[in-house]
Amino acid sequence: MTVKIALLGFGTVASGVPFLLKENGEKINQSAHSEIEVAKVLVKDEDEKNRLLAAGNDFNFVTNVDDILSDQDITIVVELMGRIEPAKTFITRALEAGKHVVTANKDLLAVHGAELLEIAKEHNVALYYEAAVAGGIPILRTLANSLASDKITRVLGVVNGTSNFMMTKMVEEGWSYDDALAEAQRLGFAESDPTNDVDGIDAAYKMVILSQFAFGMKVAFDDVAHKGIRNITPEDVAVAQDLGYVVKLVGSIEETPSGIAAEVTPTFLPIAHPLASVNGVMNAVFVESIGIGESMYYGPGAGQKPTATSVVADIVRIVRRLNDGTIGKDFNEYSRDLVLANPEDVKANYYFSILAPDSKGQVLKLAEIFNAQDISFKQILQDGKEGDKARVVIITHKINKAQLENVSAELKKVSEFDLLNTFKVLGE
Amino acid sequence: MTVKIALLGFGTVASGVPFLLKENGEKINQSAHSEIEVAKVLVKDEDEKNRLLAAGNDFNFVTNVDDILSDQDITIVVELMGRIEPAKTFITRALEAGKHVVTANKDLLAVHGAELLEIAKEHNVALYYEAAVAGGIPILRTLANSLASDKITRVLGVVNGTSNFMMTKMVEEGWSYDDALAEAQRLGFAESDPTNDVDGIDAAYKMVILSQFAFGMKVAFDDVAHKGIRNITPEDVAVAQDLGYVVKLVGSIEETPSGIAAEVTPTFLPIAHPLASVNGVMNAVFVESIGIGESMYYGPGAGQKPTATSVVADIVRIVRRLNDGTIGKDFNEYSRDLVLANPEDVKANYYFSILAPDSKGQVLKLAEIFNAQDISFKQILQDGKEGDKARVVIITHKINKAQLENVSAELKKVSEFDLLNTFKVLGE
Repeated sequence: MTVKIALLGFGTVASGVPFLLKENGEKINQSAHSEIEVAKVLVKDEDEKNRLLAAGNDFNFVTNVDDILSDQDITIVVELMGRIEPAKTFITRALEAGKHVVTANKDLLAVHGAELLEIAKEHNVALYYEAAVAGGIPILRTLANSLASDKITRVLGVVNGTSNFMMTKMVEEGWSYDDALAEAQRLGFAESDPTNDVDGIDAAYKMVILSQFAFGMKVAFDDVAHKGIRNITPEDVAVAQDLGYVVKLVGSIEETPSGIAAEVTPTFLPIAHPLASVNGVMNAVFVESIGIGESMYYGPGAGQKPTATSVVADIVRIVRRLNDGTIGKDFNEYSRDLVLANPEDVKANYYFSILAPDSKGQVLKLAEIFNAQDISFKQILQDGKEGDKARVVIITHKINKAQLENVSAELKKVSEFDLLNTFKVLGE
Repeated sequence: MTVKIALLGFGTVASGVPFLLKENGEKINQSAHSEIEVAKVLVKDEDEKNRLLAAGNDFNFVTNVDDILSDQDITIVVELMGRIEPAKTFITRALEAGKHVVTANKDLLAVHGAELLEIAKEHNVALYYEAAVAGGIPILRTLANSLASDKITRVLGVVNGTSNFMMTKMVEEGWSYDDALAEAQRLGFAESDPTNDVDGIDAAYKMVILSQFAFGMKVAFDDVAHKGIRNITPEDVAVAQDLGYVVKLVGSIEETPSGIAAEVTPTFLPIAHPLASVNGVMNAVFVESIGIGESMYYGPGAGQKPTATSVVADIVRIVRRLNDGTIGKDFNEYSRDLVLANPEDVKANYYFSILAPDSKGQVLKLAEIFNAQDISFKQILQDGKEGDKARVVIITHKINKAQLENVSAELKKVSEFDLLNTFKVLGE
């Protein structure tokens, strides 16, 4: 039996799908127990169609999605257009037409995933999206299958390749944020408006999806606090290195006694931590659990072939299930009611970088402010001067989110102190 | 429905199974769609049974395997005794009795796996063994499922925790082999006879199993060349560091134009390679493929809870398939005829450490010997003296196995040269 699929969109990732089906056909067919054929490809208009045909692409290009949705021979629709619309409408209509859907669209899934999964369930069809988180890393299926036996306590992810490329330049070469961004844009890793990547929005979308697989809870995008890398200075990076840390943009989801907490924030990683050596555009998801303990899944977070590999893995899985007669099960079956953590239960060490008058008694004054919030210091150092001010760096013992907010507010009240940055610090 | 399982053996790993079933029961039951109950546990004799009962273990301990094999209520048998016999006989009889089997026994699977899988197939039952390779890392299922869409070109693994612990001490602390072994034995990581670990035998067993999942080929244990870490000296480790490498025991399987080649050997890893930061008893499997490109799977290679997590993941998968009515499929369905590579196609850079007379013209003489085998140098340095001899270190450009053997043989013919060590070097 040959299973016919249709691609919505024929950009970089989409063209990787026929590449894999051809180059790795023997193994894919053996695993799927069927041949898989790209029967139709939706493109924007006649111009794009003619351009693609002229470039030697030998596919049945169509410009109207109805040509795919009404085609009874097409079993699986693969959405690779990106953005919310018209992807959401097309996926909805495909599911309603009884077609299984594979997508890599994390923005859409993070915001409208629950709704789309509900539609898939109603129509007893599959909606798979392995490629939506960390591109080539098979993290979602691994969480759903292999870690079904384990109880996860925390997930830490370096899941945005653009910001990790920039942070690697800033850490290894001492570059400024602006220089790193310019280079990322020159290489095509960052868009002209880099907001989604550098402000942690893209990583927050991924935390939404990971929270469902790792904790069985549907955290809303708005419940993922996100803070990006824009304000990280060469001085922050340098002092981190002096203290044995590497700064990266890290997404985290953890289960506390009162519920789960997800956030994306620049984080000081101890240099020996496995995530600290994840460099350039590579991604990694680090999982802490009661069974395995610590495991990490590393690979490319984007790119044509890595993303297409995850997409084709989803297609193969759907075809297998069609052949087994077990289609219609959720991609992720782990589900619990969402309970968010109390801010008091979300604890971490924190780094504070503060400009203070270069005179005696300032450290004592700072100590009093921190002490009033019941925060003790793990490390404190005076690190250089800026004009007539001294730069004081503090790393605290574990504090909770309420303490973090309170002490930040208190510091801002003191006119001679200038709170430059606060970042999370991973450690005991 | 409750699915009843029996454990063969109640050592460290086995006792981790009821731990996970209890601590993570809700999630496991949700994923398996059934409750899972440890109905019987086989122990050696009445003494062990009484000791375990006295220690507060509340299980139905039996001392005769027939009590399990003839029990129609028991669906899954979990073998965690280790070694070849009686494990092989018990597994065979369990499969013949129509019971599904989960095991972590890599020695058994590497040597008798094909035979046991055949018996499982005949009786339409499952034989799963995720825990047999790299303990807590879900590498086998990931290769079988998520990487079904990808074509793997090379697998590199740090898969023996004991030797990796020792190498970490030798690299990071400059310890000798003997000191590292003594410490590993003191901590219980190495047995009193450490042969299996330090000579690469354990890692070679794992390459046998990985070759089936990654390349669909059943490489025999005897076809995995293995060389251990006994002869690595502090001088080798130090010069590796000077040249930007970390020495580790690495298993590799690669597909060449003529077939596949598997080996275990000390390897110089470039310091920025993800495997280079896998330290202590941790394991990692690094996969190169045409789709994803590079991915790595990192975690504990042994230990009670990590291994039990993989065992329970297998149990859950079997129960799911029982409920789906899809039981009896091979754990790994990827299968091709075995074709081993010609030695001429197996290429790598190599490190040579040679003692030579401390006099002029020796490097020229060495260059002539290497040149006669068509081997060119990437790096050469004179690195310290031993008595009246100088230590010459050479890193070659890519050479094949035949060249390696020939040049080693030629060097041994020259009485004034003493070939101390040759190790593989990862790189271009």
